[in-house]
Formats: sequence, C-alpha cells, structure tokens
Amino acid sequence: MTEELPKTIHELETPCMLVDIDKVKRNCQRMTDRCKEMGVELRPHMKTHKTKEGGELMTNGTKRKVVVSTIDEAIFYADNGFEDIIWGSPIVKERISKRLINLANRLEEFHVMVDSLQGLKGLIATPLKEGKQWSVFLEVDCGYGRTGCLWSKEEAVEIAKTADDAPNVKFQGLYTHCGNSYTPDVEQKNRTQKETSDRLIALKNRLSKNGVDCKVVGCGSTPSCSKPIDNLSTLTEMHPGNYIFNDYNQVVCNSCTFDDVACKIATTVVSHKPEVQTIVVDCGWTAFGLDGPNENWPQAVLGRAPVEGHPELIMDRMTQEVGKMKARNGEIDYSKYPLGSRLYLYPWHSCCTASQHPVYYIHSGDKIVGAWRPTRGW
Amino acid sequence: MTEELPKTIHELETPCMLVDIDKVKRNCQRMTDRCKEMGVELRPHMKTHKTKEGGELMTNGTKRKVVVSTIDEAIFYADNGFEDIIWGSPIVKERISKRLINLANRLEEFHVMVDSLQGLKGLIATPLKEGKQWSVFLEVDCGYGRTGCLWSKEEAVEIAKTADDAPNVKFQGLYTHCGNSYTPDVEQKNRTQKETSDRLIALKNRLSKNGVDCKVVGCGSTPSCSKPIDNLSTLTEMHPGNYIFNDYNQVVCNSCTFDDVACKIATTVVSHKPEVQTIVVDCGWTAFGLDGPNENWPQAVLGRAPVEGHPELIMDRMTQEVGKMKARNGEIDYSKYPLGSRLYLYPWHSCCTASQHPVYYIHSGDKIVGAWRPTRGW
Repeated sequence: MTEELPKTIHELETPCMLVDIDKVKRNCQRMTDRCKEMGVELRPHMKTHKTKEGGELMTNGTKRKVVVSTIDEAIFYADNGFEDIIWGSPIVKERISKRLINLANRLEEFHVMVDSLQGLKGLIATPLKEGKQWSVFLEVDCGYGRTGCLWSKEEAVEIAKTADDAPNVKFQGLYTHCGNSYTPDVEQKNRTQKETSDRLIALKNRLSKNGVDCKVVGCGSTPSCSKPIDNLSTLTEMHPGNYIFNDYNQVVCNSCTFDDVACKIATTVVSHKPEVQTIVVDCGWTAFGLDGPNENWPQAVLGRAPVEGHPELIMDRMTQEVGKMKARNGEIDYSKYPLGSRLYLYPWHSCCTASQHPVYYIHSGDKIVGAWRPTRGW
Repeated sequence: MTEELPKTIHELETPCMLVDIDKVKRNCQRMTDRCKEMGVELRPHMKTHKTKEGGELMTNGTKRKVVVSTIDEAIFYADNGFEDIIWGSPIVKERISKRLINLANRLEEFHVMVDSLQGLKGLIATPLKEGKQWSVFLEVDCGYGRTGCLWSKEEAVEIAKTADDAPNVKFQGLYTHCGNSYTPDVEQKNRTQKETSDRLIALKNRLSKNGVDCKVVGCGSTPSCSKPIDNLSTLTEMHPGNYIFNDYNQVVCNSCTFDDVACKIATTVVSHKPEVQTIVVDCGWTAFGLDGPNENWPQAVLGRAPVEGHPELIMDRMTQEVGKMKARNGEIDYSKYPLGSRLYLYPWHSCCTASQHPVYYIHSGDKIVGAWRPTRGW
C-alpha cells in the first residue's frame, strides 16, 4: 500500500467506514467450514463489499466461484483475476451489451441468469466466439416474489428445455435467492428454507423427467446459510454475501450476534440541541444509506443505527450530512456525548451502508492495517 | 471530452442518471434573475450535483461564492478554481483538520460555520498563516431544529461577540438553512419564510446593539428561494442548491412543475411477475437512493419514483439492484411495459439520487452532449 494511512482509527476524520479484519476473517472461515460440513459448494456474493480483498477472503484465496450484482462488478472481478462468475440478475434481450458479450468470451467461466424465454432467446440469437457457449442458470422464484420464474410454472420447464436444446447455450441449473428468509421468527425462517429447497428439488425433478439435467442447484441469503437446516444439503451450492460484514438486521434475524458485525461508521458529535433534546452527528444518509427497519421489524428496538456502547440513543432522522439522535427515554444526558466526541454506528443493512463509501478503513483492534476501495456503478 | 459516449440516451445501458442540460440552464437562469430582482446575492449550494460543470452554471461562470456540504467538496471546488467557499456544517474543535487549515490558508475566501463556543474557541486556538484569519459565520437555528444555535439564545450573542473580538477571526454574519420550508402548504411555507427572516433580522439587530456587525445575513432552501416572499429581500444572501435539478419533492412543495425537473433515472423492465402483479426494473436503491415521501407527504401521490408518462405505476419496493413496481389500481397491463422496455423515473429527492451515481449523462433532447463526474466522500 503506497498511500499514507493514519496509524489508528482514532486519527481518522469522520464520517468513515471501519471494517474489523479479524471479524471479517472469522465470518468468512465460519461460512467456509459450514459449507464444507454440509457438503455444498460456497459461491459467495460480492455485492456487500465489492472489493478485491473481500473477494479473496470470501473465496479462501482461490478467486473462483463468485456471484456479482452488476456488470461493473463482473468486469472489476475479472480484471482482478477472478474466475467463474455469475451475474445474478435476469437477462433480457436488451441487456445483452458489448460488455456482457466480452465477459462471456473472455472468462473461462461466466454465467448469466434468465427468468424469461425473451431473455434466453436473446442469448441464443447472440453468437459468442468459437468454442464458447452462453452458460445459463434458470433463476427461480420459490415464493419470495421478486425476480425469477415461479418454480411451479410450466414456463420454467420450457425455458430450461429451450436452453438445454440450444447449441450455443450450456444449461447449468437453478438459482434462487431466498430473500424471504429475512425474518426474526426462527420457525418461519426454517419453514421458508425447507419450502425453498423442496421447491427447487421438485423443479429439478420435473426438469429431469423432461430430459434436462441440473448440474447446479443453488440457494442464497445470509440468514438461511448462517443457520442452515439439514434440508439445504440437498442442494449443491450456497451463495450468501452479507455474512462477510453482517449487520443489525442479521442480528435481529438470529444469523449472528453483535460481536460478529464487522463494520461500523465512525461519526462525531457536531451539535448539541437541548431545546429539541437531540445531539447531531456528522453521519447523514450519504454515509449511512437509508435502509432501516420498517413496521415489519418490531424486534429492531435499537433502530436503524445502533450506537456501540449506547443503547440509550436512537437515530431519529438523517439528512444529507447529519444525523439527529435522541434518547430512547426522551431526555439526553449531554455530559455523556460532549461536542467532538465519537460514536460508532452499526449499520442496519451493511450492503446499503458500504455502498455509500469510496473507501473502507481496515483495522485490527485500534490499529489501521489497510484500506479497501470498492468498485461502483453498473 | 476524450471519452467515447453514446450518441443518444437510448443507447445508454441502464440504470443511469440523465440530466437535461436545457432545463438545468433554465433553472439556473431563473434563480439568478430572481436574486437580482430581489437585490440579494446568490450563493448556490453544490451538494446536489457536486460537479465542476454544475458549479459553473450555478455561478454564471464566475466560479465564486458557493456553499459546500463536505471538506471533500471544498477541496474539489478549490482544485477546480472556485473561490469564496463556505463549508456549511458546524465546526467543533475536533473537526479542525489539516485539510481544513490548508483550505483556509490556500483560498482567498474560505468560510466556516460555528454554532457553539467550543467550535469557535477551537478556531481561535488554531493559528493560520500570516495575514490570514478564520472567516466565520454563526449558524442560526430559526426553528428548523437541526443544527445551529437557536436564534433567541443568549449564547448566539456570546458566540458572535467572541468571534468579533478574536484577532484571528473575521466574523461574517448569520447563516440559516430554513429546511422547514419544505411543505406543500403555501401559507405555512410563507409563514415559515417570514418567521425565519424576521428572526434572523432580530438577531442581527441584537448583535448590532452589542456592537457586532453582520456583513452577511443568509438563508437557503430551494422552496423558500423558488417562490420567495418579499420579506426575504431584507436578507443579503440566498443559498439554495436543489433547484439546479429540482425533483418530485419540489413539485409537491410548489417550487416548480414536473417540466422543471432536470434529472431522471433510465431503467429497464427486466422481469414480469404476473403472479404477484409486479414488473421488476433494474433500478434499486444503489441507483435511486431510498429517500421518499413519508406519512407527512400525503400529497406525494406518485410515490418516491414517479414514472414519466406512466402515472398508473408506483414503486412498491427497492432492493439493492431492482425495483418492484405495481399498478396503482392493482392490476398491471403487461402489454404496456414489455420486457426490455425503458422507463424513466423522477427522483423524489435529487440530492439523494444524484449522490448514488459516479456519472451523470448530460443530454439535450435525445442527444448526449456530455458526462459530468461528481466528487464523493467527506
């Protein structure tokens, strides 16, 4: 590293994002071990951190087998020597860009997803260089209801068969996100996990009866992969991403404890406002993002930005560069948060918070040991 | 411009941010004219766009007299030849960094704000190079309740007097934001404007009685400056920022019409989900931000992301890279939004949406005429 970094986190100007490298390593090791035990492959999602260094840690140094959320990320990881990359967003004909074709031609293994015949037919109509095929997953909706072809639909079979039959397509199998595993209700999460893997396997069997083989059947999400049920080992691959950092949402979902949350935002108290019983910090939505618990998350009693060591504080409102914090009981003890003092905020959603930062300061204890610079854009 | 840009907006990959240069120029010209008519100086805020080009247009090519929201912005504008810059965030002792001192030493005119004696005393204790003084505004809270010393407090006089008496400080005057002018109720907005300027003038007079002169009395916010009441001309300076782009929030606040909103997000329909009556677009919170109308904004019937030409659609939920849209009446006519078709979303809050983009594509009609790259960070 050629840039000059401060020696300790206390010397950094605020707001800034801190990443505890020891916790990151522990989070990565645990997920690797868990997948090994279950006998499933781990294909980590890069979207939370979008850095080279994070990708190396999540792949145990192999730099193989990752998922990305944008073409920009795919190019960034390809440029950094990563291989076997899935772009985890459904292809439609109009998304088949020069950049996409270049990735497919350039990487040993680059995979795309479809959830429609329109997208698949676009790929079939787009030749790659000699010896190259489009490597295609069917994105499946097992009940989450975001993207993906609904598992029970006849179209799912039609897409898979069409892909399998096309000479310039290699059909890989099934991919689902399982975003509906984000719940603090352990019973419900386990039911969702079971339902999701049962539905994937049911679809796999339907495809098999139609002569289509699924090499890979993959399912993601940090809540499901952090506390997996046995049933998940009927699949071949897991693709969680958030676990590298974790966040308060994962704590509420029982994926981890606060001690496993590896990132936080350092912020400074810049104003005391006794007339409205607030303190103002230099962390607004540019530094924190605006994702937070809504009415579906009554368990998130600490709000969107729990303050390390100060459960009595709650983030009331953020504007562009400042956050207004109140006391949970209404009356702030100003002597506890002098002007200029620092607070450390845990993100509700670390993907959202991290995406706001051009640099993450990496620390071990109080010592700064590096800086990671994420890619950005689409 | 050396980079190769597509010729028209239709060739851009999505999601991306489009800025209509003709509307930007019109918005800038109107604000310039309005300030001239009122006989007040215009000191535009850079925080909405954070670009060199936008700053040049807002200052009518003079590159003088701006407000910025972060030290990073101040350095960016200084590096690009801008002068007379206010950092619009309250100083506390712990924020007096090397970067801040460098700016004060390097620029002809660089101004900071304080709302506490703690911050001011920090400045007084920090010498600048020979011949240089800290140029200081008192940030005043006239009722908005975010940052700033409350206008009626005795401390306001104490801070101003202490600043005025300090040999290494030049006291400039008063600065307030007037964020409480964001309301769709014109009567209430006018009352707020009047109250704000009355309170500023009252404080100015109190200071005058205490022997402290205010060279500048400034007030900001796009709603107040877009439809100013006569009373505002009792001030010397206005510092709105959002008006360069405007947004749906400004439309709801009667600051402008939709025709004056100069930016939008281009997005592609990537999935049809008839089983949950949604269409999915490739614009998630990374491309749009998450600011949106809450229960205080019942007038915002089009939701956080009004779709150009499609008032029947509403953004239901955004995750990292996708947005789920529903029909206002519950049933989507899928033939109107084929897979691969483009939609254009107006931001609820253009400061928030713009801050998510590493580049803005500048267009005149359908033709792309440039690309602006904002600065980012703190």
